[in-house]
Formats: sequence, C-alpha cells, structure tokens
Amino acid sequence: MNISKRGLEIQESPIRKLKPFADKAQERGIHVFFINIGQPDIPTPQPVWEALKNYDEDVLSYGPAQGFLELRQAIADYFVAYSIPLTPENVIITIGGSEAIHFSFCVVADPGGEIIIPEPFYTNYNGYASSANVKIVPLTLSVEDGFRLPPAEEIEAKITPKTRAILLCSPNNPTGTVYTPEELERVISVVKKHDLFLIADEVYKEFVYDGASHKSILEYDEIKDRAIVVDSISKRFSCCGARIGAVITRNKDIFQSILKFAQARLCPPSIEQSIALAAYRMERDYFVPIREEYQKRRDVLYEGLKDIPGIVMHKPQGAFYIIVRLPIKDCEHFVRWMLTDFNLGNETVMVTPAQGFYSSSGKGKDEVRIAYVLKEQDLKRAIHVFKEGLSKYLSLFSK
Amino acid sequence: MNISKRGLEIQESPIRKLKPFADKAQERGIHVFFINIGQPDIPTPQPVWEALKNYDEDVLSYGPAQGFLELRQAIADYFVAYSIPLTPENVIITIGGSEAIHFSFCVVADPGGEIIIPEPFYTNYNGYASSANVKIVPLTLSVEDGFRLPPAEEIEAKITPKTRAILLCSPNNPTGTVYTPEELERVISVVKKHDLFLIADEVYKEFVYDGASHKSILEYDEIKDRAIVVDSISKRFSCCGARIGAVITRNKDIFQSILKFAQARLCPPSIEQSIALAAYRMERDYFVPIREEYQKRRDVLYEGLKDIPGIVMHKPQGAFYIIVRLPIKDCEHFVRWMLTDFNLGNETVMVTPAQGFYSSSGKGKDEVRIAYVLKEQDLKRAIHVFKEGLSKYLSLFSK
Repeated sequence: MNISKRGLEIQESPIRKLKPFADKAQERGIHVFFINIGQPDIPTPQPVWEALKNYDEDVLSYGPAQGFLELRQAIADYFVAYSIPLTPENVIITIGGSEAIHFSFCVVADPGGEIIIPEPFYTNYNGYASSANVKIVPLTLSVEDGFRLPPAEEIEAKITPKTRAILLCSPNNPTGTVYTPEELERVISVVKKHDLFLIADEVYKEFVYDGASHKSILEYDEIKDRAIVVDSISKRFSCCGARIGAVITRNKDIFQSILKFAQARLCPPSIEQSIALAAYRMERDYFVPIREEYQKRRDVLYEGLKDIPGIVMHKPQGAFYIIVRLPIKDCEHFVRWMLTDFNLGNETVMVTPAQGFYSSSGKGKDEVRIAYVLKEQDLKRAIHVFKEGLSKYLSLFSK
Repeated sequence: MNISKRGLEIQESPIRKLKPFADKAQERGIHVFFINIGQPDIPTPQPVWEALKNYDEDVLSYGPAQGFLELRQAIADYFVAYSIPLTPENVIITIGGSEAIHFSFCVVADPGGEIIIPEPFYTNYNGYASSANVKIVPLTLSVEDGFRLPPAEEIEAKITPKTRAILLCSPNNPTGTVYTPEELERVISVVKKHDLFLIADEVYKEFVYDGASHKSILEYDEIKDRAIVVDSISKRFSCCGARIGAVITRNKDIFQSILKFAQARLCPPSIEQSIALAAYRMERDYFVPIREEYQKRRDVLYEGLKDIPGIVMHKPQGAFYIIVRLPIKDCEHFVRWMLTDFNLGNETVMVTPAQGFYSSSGKGKDEVRIAYVLKEQDLKRAIHVFKEGLSKYLSLFSK
C-alpha cells in the first residue's frame, strides 16, 4: 500500500511551497509585498461582474464537454480579430490553461514520451508531466542573452526517437521573453523536419510592450496540423480564479481526441463560462490602458533593480515576469530569510526562487523570478525593501 | 506526428455520443424525454443563488490549491454530522468528483497499475484510466441478483501483483445498488489482506431510499490509511455545472501527494467554491423532500417498467439510475432508432445503452441505463412512450 512513484516524485510547487513562511510573517504583523506569483491586482472588468449578477438559471446544470458554443465562438472571433481564421470547431473550453496543457500532453505523448521545453519554464508543466508520465526534456537558455532560443542544431540535439513535441511559451513565464518571428520559424522548421507537434502556451498574448505585437503559431499555415495552442482568460481579463481556458487546434483528429478527454471530466464550470463570455465581448481597447500599466511597472522594476551590483537580467518584452540572477549561491535560502528574519519598518518582500523553473539539476539556484503585479507605488516600495534586504543578506552571508 | 495511443484509445463517452441524434430529433420538432443522463431537474437551492448574487470581490483571484479553508471545514462538518470525525486537513477541494477520481488514480497507481472495479461502472472512470494510464480490471456483476458483490474469493481472483486498489461506488451509478455493511466489510478484508487502497465514490450518499442509510468507508477505522473517498456537490445540491468536488483521506502521505497534483492545476474555481459553501451551510432537512421525490420517481419508474415482457431489473436502493435488461440483442441500435425513427405524438425518449458501463467486451449489449431525473408526470409520460417504442421496435426487429 505505497503511494505511486509519480505521486512521490511530483514536485511541490516551488511558487507555493514557501507560502507558509509568508503566512507566519503576516501573523507577526509584517506586511509582505507579494511579487512572487502571477496574481495581478488589476480589477476584474465590470462586464464580468455584471454577467455574474445577471446569471439566471433554475438549475446549475452540466454544459457541453467542449464548452458552450457562444464562448467557443467568442474565442474564435478574438483570434479572427488578429487575422487568424478560427471557428468554434477549433476551440475546446478547458478548466484553466492548466487543463489545456494536460490535454495537450496526453494527446501528443504516451507514457515515456518526450516533450522539449526551453528552460526556465512555467513550473507547473512539471506537475502535468508527472500525472501524464511524460518526460520534459529541457533546452537550457541563459539569462545573459535574454533567454533567446539557440540555433536549430542545438534544438535538434535534444530530439530522440521518443520526442513527440516542442512546447514554447511566448510571451514567456518566467522570463518575459517574446520570441521573434525568426525564432518561431526556426522551431517550425525543426518540428516539420522531425515530424513533431508544436504546443504553444500563448496566455500572455496581450501583454507585449514597446509597441511590439505577439505572433501566434496559428499564423503559420505550414504547421496547421501540428499546432496546438494553450489559452486562458486568467491573466488576460484578471480572472485567475475563474479557471477558464481553451485548447485550440485545427487538427481535426487532435480535436476529436481532446474532446474525449474532455468528456471524461464532463464539462468546465458553467457560471464561469458565462462570465468569460462577457469578458470576450468587451471592446478590444480594454487592453490598451492595462498594457500601458504593465509596461510602466516593468520599467519601474527594471530601472529599480539595475543598479544592484552583480545583478544579471534582461528587460522583458512581455508577460509580467523577470528572471534576475543575484550575487547569491542559494536564492531559496535568501527568499526564506526575507520572510523569516528580515523586515524594514515591518515590511518585507516575497519573490520566487527560480530553481523550480528549471528541470536541469542545479540550474537557477542563483536566480529569482519577480512578478510585476503590484501598482507603481507598491512596487517601488517593494523594490526598496527588496534591495535593503538583499544588502543586509549579503553582509550577513558573504559568498 | 501521430496522436498518442491513449489519445486514440480513450473511449468516447457512451452517454454523450448519441446526443447528436437527439439534437436532430429536436430539430425535427420532436420532444425528447432525456432520461439518459444524471442531470436532475431539482432546482439548485436558493441559498446557492443568493451566494452567487452576493459574491463581491474586485479581483477574481486564485484561491489555495487545496480549496478555501471555510469550504473544507464545511465539508468536514458535513461528515462529522454523520459521526465521521474529519477535519479540513482531510479534505482537498477538487474540480468536480471527476478530478477527485483522477487524483486518486494517479496517487495510488503508476502507468500499468491495476484498479479493480465492479462492473457495470460509471463510464467516465474509463477516461481517467486512459489519461492516467491505469488499467481497470472489471469484476463483473449481474442484473439477475441486483448487482450484489461476489464472495471474497471471486474478488481476490482479480488481484495480480499490479493491483493497487479496489474502487467501489455506492450508492451506485449505473445500477442503483447500495452495498450493505457486510459487503463493504468483505471488500475491506480483501484490501487489508492484500495491502491495497480502497477508493469509494460516495457522491450519491444522500440518495438512499426506504428509510435506509448509507455507510461510508470512512466509518471503518481499520482502513483509516487505505480509504480515499470521492465526493461532489453536483447531485447532492443540484449543482452539476459548478464542478466542485472533494477528495477525502486520513492518510497524510496521500493528502500531501494529492496536494502536489492539485498545485499543478493551481486551484478550483473561486466563485463556485463560495456557492458550494452556501449549499453546505443549509440545514440538513433540505434533503428530506428531495429524497422523497427521488424515491417516488424510482417507484414510478420501477412499477411502470415491470410489466414489460422479458425485462430483467432490480429495484434500486439508491442514486437515481437503474440498469434494465431488455429483450433486445443490441440496445445501442434500439436507442438510436428511438431517436431517428420513432415518435409517439411527436415525443420520444432517450436512454443510455449500458455497454459503455462495462469494460468486459460484449457485456451489457442487451441492457440500458435509465436515470429517473424527471418529475413524476414527465417520467410517467416518458415511460409510456418508451414502452410503445420498445413494442414497435420488437415488432419490427424480431430477435
């Protein structure tokens, strides 16, 4: 009567595992600035709350396994506005982007199958790899060059007979990198040459700065049948708690197979689908001030950190994260110390040790991920407290 | 670039796959009585809708991976009212009972591991077995004796070195059988003797008739560490579309492992958790009239069907399903014919072919599952139409 191997080996969320130390700091009366998780403070838009108030049913009943048609249509329309021709027949509503990842893994790979993912990567991919028994093969990128993708040969060197897919996340969590068309095309040539699927996590699509725009893998007709896109309303509309995402594919066989996985779990939550519909029906200019707000926060954070001696980082082009190399050997120790032993005028800061975003052993120990999810004033204060803490820590624990 | 083996082999929901024929019947103007799925017509209770109207947040944010503490406490309290001592530390909120099943499978078994389940069983177990690559080993029961469990030796004959758990569903979907304490104890002795986990799907706990009550596997202290219970608000509170369930265990290692799977998918939907809380805070007498209503429907259905020549069935003791053997070789053909070729005064009936509830090849082809989820008048009319259809079918397609 032992727990399964996968049940033992599945990683604890590195984002959440230090949370108890933050809870204890708060119990001691210390204000903690949380720039560790991607929980934006942007208010959920008013039409969403109105849809909630107007929800009117007698029976909260099951919906279709693939999600409500109106919502699938609204998501298709959203992409059509980006000149990506989609219909509801390409969209399956999932329970968060999380489930879209899970379905994608299950449908492209059997147990033991391999999926190549540039690291550092969104740590929860590991959890889904564990439950689907898929092996993530990391393609290690580096903070020095802003986590750009390597030449095709280096990607191809990771391919084995068990490789089933490459997964890209752009704009990237945790690095903030947005892949250029040239980088996407490099990966596309590799998946075509080696007959692989290409999974793209594009949930941060709207969060691209400096006037640049995001290019979706759905724009490449040559990989029409290979492309699987993971999408979500969580960040796009500040609806993290709604758990509504989508998996998007033009490959009919993939669609039909994912539909069967979807049927097994019956349906996505009904109320939350109706509020997602309200979100998608908003005018597209909703994003303009939000994008500006995040860009400003990024600038505040980047400018605020850059005079730290020994720091290595690159200005993110999208999403709301940055990976920062610190002059510290064990950032997990530092992050915990900030919560247990440090405060400045009863304030401290929580960031995330980056090690959990790497699957290569030992990588990322000297890096942290910071999420710029607080409003400017709070973020500035958080940066100040962070720098003071770092300086104190370095004076106590010399390298 | 092929779909995975599991992606190809995962079964299409036998409950949902005939739905397109029903849609077409409706398009032709025919009224379809749906007694094929467990979607009750009982209104979702008013406190749930009030909680929805009163939901008041600025940001629809992530909740804890294990669910909100208040809801975990409320579920623990619900069991305490049944003299089952639980605390929030035993409860993880899941996205429907479906996810509770999925987590249970992943935590007890690795790919290739076996779980013994009496058949016919809830067909969606198959979907989760596919995505977790677990093998369901059926223990075939029979309509003749009301799907009672066989002697311990017959259960033990299914055990191999790969067996990790036995799963029981009681009150049972699709048979309506409620296992007696003696039957539970028989299985408990087997899991103890062979060092296995016991998973129990108890989502129909409140739906037990004729003054009987349901016994939970959590009442047996001797399997404190082996017992994993799957629970859900879907049927209990007519909240199928909320997708809120729970996995309940007193085994701390199992809890910790499931928590890690839960962290990977971030959290259950926030709004729907708050309405679930309102449901659990209702007085327990909420269930009395509902139980009476279902018992009446069961009696109406059972009495209505029993004079059909050649029929074999047993009066269900719980849930709201019955498996009926018909004098028909291929019930799927019959069910489809009812939707495509038959109507009585522009009315027809949809039931579910039972074959999909069996994993043993060829079993259940002469059986259907009927869900008594309609109010008395509609159910009576549905039975009448069903019987007329059956009679016509038998006259057209002699055995």
